[in-house]
Amino acid sequence: MHIANEERLLEALTPNERRALDGASRKLLASLETETFTARDSSDREVQMEITRNSVETKPGSGEWFTGKVYLDAVAAPIGASRLSATSVHFTPGARTHWHTHPNGQTIYVTEGVGLAQCRGGPIEVIRPGDRVFFEPGEEHWHGASPNRFMTHLAMLEVDDEGNNATWGDPVTDEEYGGDA
Amino acid sequence: MHIANEERLLEALTPNERRALDGASRKLLASLETETFTARDSSDREVQMEITRNSVETKPGSGEWFTGKVYLDAVAAPIGASRLSATSVHFTPGARTHWHTHPNGQTIYVTEGVGLAQCRGGPIEVIRPGDRVFFEPGEEHWHGASPNRFMTHLAMLEVDDEGNNATWGDPVTDEEYGGDA
Repeated sequence: MHIANEERLLEALTPNERRALDGASRKLLASLETETFTARDSSDREVQMEITRNSVETKPGSGEWFTGKVYLDAVAAPIGASRLSATSVHFTPGARTHWHTHPNGQTIYVTEGVGLAQCRGGPIEVIRPGDRVFFEPGEEHWHGASPNRFMTHLAMLEVDDEGNNATWGDPVTDEEYGGDA
Repeated sequence: MHIANEERLLEALTPNERRALDGASRKLLASLETETFTARDSSDREVQMEITRNSVETKPGSGEWFTGKVYLDAVAAPIGASRLSATSVHFTPGARTHWHTHPNGQTIYVTEGVGLAQCRGGPIEVIRPGDRVFFEPGEEHWHGASPNRFMTHLAMLEVDDEGNNATWGDPVTDEEYGGDA
């Protein structure tokens, strides 16, 4: 078992030392400060449970992949044999992904607000909390907030053999977003 | 694209007809009432986006797998090449899974309340919103609410070649749950 507890570390620092830690170094600490407990399964094989405490910083969505302000919280990350990646993605009003595809498809599950999703050549669909959308492997699509509403969704996928989660294309233009294309 | 919209169907029924629909048949209708839109990718291959509207019924957790009252909402389901399964699991105070393992591991991400998690032979760990736990493939473990608090977590995993998500063992006894074992 594996515990990353940034808070305990920070408590041991002086105010000056705390201020000296910028976002990048705190992220690094969070990933380094781990405690590992192990157990043995019925075949006497050593197995581990890994806990990542609520210490992972919210990341801004890169302008290479998103239009508008987007905030990302990690929910699950590939580890060992597990290829699962999950992120809680917070889209401010009007923000959206660029056109993109996923090697093994993607499921999004809306948890808050009102959003939009479209696959290339299809209609723009309004999505609301509790709705889920599955995008097939290789399907070119985008998703994001509606023009006047915040939208949060969970994005879940399996990375490919090389660890890739997506292939990114062009931004969704205002005309496409407005439904004129 | 694939839309399951149970509500529209129900509106077309008389009150008597509605009453005649029990939970099972409504679940069946939700899964049958689909609309499919397709698009073509850059290789002119037909691709689909599938939307499942917020119409999937909350399921009670089976006594074969859980102790106490547990409520399950589907968040993602294996489809085509995607093996991803995700469920929002609501544990009432004191409720917990039985001991179990997952063929490809599992990540849980706490969204509400205070919970407990333990791998066989390890300490019982308290888990809170934003904490995530990764259980290795084959690692025997349990998770659930703390004695006096509701707890909700997302459970995310990849099913195996046969579609199995878990192998279930004995219930977690009150002694084990109380931390005496």
